[in-house]
Amino acid sequence: MSNMYDSAYDIEKAIRNSVEFKELVESYQSVMNNNESKQLFEDFRDTQINLQEKQMQGVEITQEEIEGARQIVEKVQQNEMISSLIEKEQRLNLMINDISRIITKPLEELYDN
Amino acid sequence: MSNMYDSAYDIEKAIRNSVEFKELVESYQSVMNNNESKQLFEDFRDTQINLQEKQMQGVEITQEEIEGARQIVEKVQQNEMISSLIEKEQRLNLMINDISRIITKPLEELYDN
Repeated sequence: MSNMYDSAYDIEKAIRNSVEFKELVESYQSVMNNNESKQLFEDFRDTQINLQEKQMQGVEITQEEIEGARQIVEKVQQNEMISSLIEKEQRLNLMINDISRIITKPLEELYDN
Repeated sequence: MSNMYDSAYDIEKAIRNSVEFKELVESYQSVMNNNESKQLFEDFRDTQINLQEKQMQGVEITQEEIEGARQIVEKVQQNEMISSLIEKEQRLNLMINDISRIITKPLEELYDN
């Protein structure tokens, strides 16, 4: 048991020391240190969370909201700092998904039978 | 990097060898070896998945569906084999959530600042 949590802390340390995480931190700080990018990134996050929450609650998403989200995504794609941050987030998420898939394999196998 | 995946495989092995996982497997097999419990458990799972999917897609859930789900939950609660299985699933999920929380701590800290 303790072994399991020790291994989890090893992974945490390895993530913290990984190139992927260090680049993500740098990228995040670049965005946060630029007022325009910071504001746009926060708008993007808020929009995403808002739409997800509505979807989870089964609240209908209006045409205006879809259009608003589309415009923010477009602005985000044109902002190099944020695009780079999102790319770095995705890379780290892939890594974490790989790890999760390994860890939850016993459960997956059990339910697949 | 390789270190990270080695640790993930260590956790996988530790989960597989844990009392919690072994009890879950036993519990699952007991349910699967009993026709009535197996059918009820599958109905319960299908209902859950169906409602979750509707919620994700923003499709309205009818009063009848809510009532149907309530009745299945009631039957499940009265079925000792399935109640025990659900309890064992929850115990294992707590363990996996603890591990996930440790692993994703670097990300959480980054975004909390």
